Amino acid sequence: MAANILSYTYEEYIERVRAFHSYAAPGVLIGGFMVDMAYRHLPEKDLYDALCETPKCLPDAVQLLTPCTVGNGWLTVINLGRFALSLYNKSTGKGVRVYIDPSRLDGWPEIKSWFFKSRAKKEQDKKALLDQIGEAAGAFLGLQRVEVAGRFMERHHRGTFAVCPGCAESYPAADGALCLGCQGMDPYVP
Amino acid sequence: MAANILSYTYEEYIERVRAFHSYAAPGVLIGGFMVDMAYRHLPEKDLYDALCETPKCLPDAVQLLTPCTVGNGWLTVINLGRFALSLYNKSTGKGVRVYIDPSRLDGWPEIKSWFFKSRAKKEQDKKALLDQIGEAAGAFLGLQRVEVAGRFMERHHRGTFAVCPGCAESYPAADGALCLGCQGMDPYVP
Repeated sequence: MAANILSYTYEEYIERVRAFHSYAAPGVLIGGFMVDMAYRHLPEKDLYDALCETPKCLPDAVQLLTPCTVGNGWLTVINLGRFALSLYNKSTGKGVRVYIDPSRLDGWPEIKSWFFKSRAKKEQDKKALLDQIGEAAGAFLGLQRVEVAGRFMERHHRGTFAVCPGCAESYPAADGALCLGCQGMDPYVP
Repeated sequence: MAANILSYTYEEYIERVRAFHSYAAPGVLIGGFMVDMAYRHLPEKDLYDALCETPKCLPDAVQLLTPCTVGNGWLTVINLGRFALSLYNKSTGKGVRVYIDPSRLDGWPEIKSWFFKSRAKKEQDKKALLDQIGEAAGAFLGLQRVEVAGRFMERHHRGTFAVCPGCAESYPAADGALCLGCQGMDPYVP
């Protein structure tokens, strides 16, 4: 029987992942054990923020299991291409980082081949992979104490707003005479 | 009585926002009407992706009401400082953009003063603001047809992975001899 993920059984967590992420992605399932491990090792159960080092999968594990979401600003997502996340005290930056330790994956062949993409997706045994993630229950994870750099703790207040003479929408006046979209960063075909 | 937000009443949606976002943020509530309007005007009910032009609040409305999340890659968040979102066809990029139209806010003084931050937070009447958002039901929103630029539709496949000689973690080999973290982008105090 698999270990719990915070207050959920592994099976309950899989259902929550399906509902939110649309499918039981191995990365979100492993992410659940990562959040669980980080949470258990937090220096204090105070207010904490979260940081994911990849946009893939991990942000959804954090958003499902903690109060931290992208939209409330308590979760920061950067892309270092590393499968790692941190929970840290909002005021001090001190916290814990959990990562996949490749040197501990040898006992978990399905997880290892998924993680290193060494097998074509259609040759993966999805059920065996999910079972192995539940059995391992994070046995291949590493944990570090970290202190998040100050730039991730600054609260960026938006200052005053203006109406952009280009698009007639509201934007942070500090961005300049036009909003960033009208300055050329618009994500749409003109 | 307020209009519905997709299949939810306004009151039901407020409860869902509280559970996910931790509090009934006006921006996520308005975001609900924005997603609802975008969804009703989608050219076709095909597979679509989402884009938010601000990380504030809107990503949570999208994640609560659509299958698009940050972690599954169907939601892109950029920061143009504009309170706008788009839903668009995954293959063609064609879709709709919904934004707050400042010229239509005059009938909604609580929303206008919240949006332009023209009143100190402690002087806001939170209940009046939430009621007005429900009454307005998106009456102050604008809608545009858009085509999202190709760079937001490319699927970035990660290629092969390597073990970083710096941190001994796995990273995309295309990033170089070391992972981006060990190249100096590490978010932690050394």
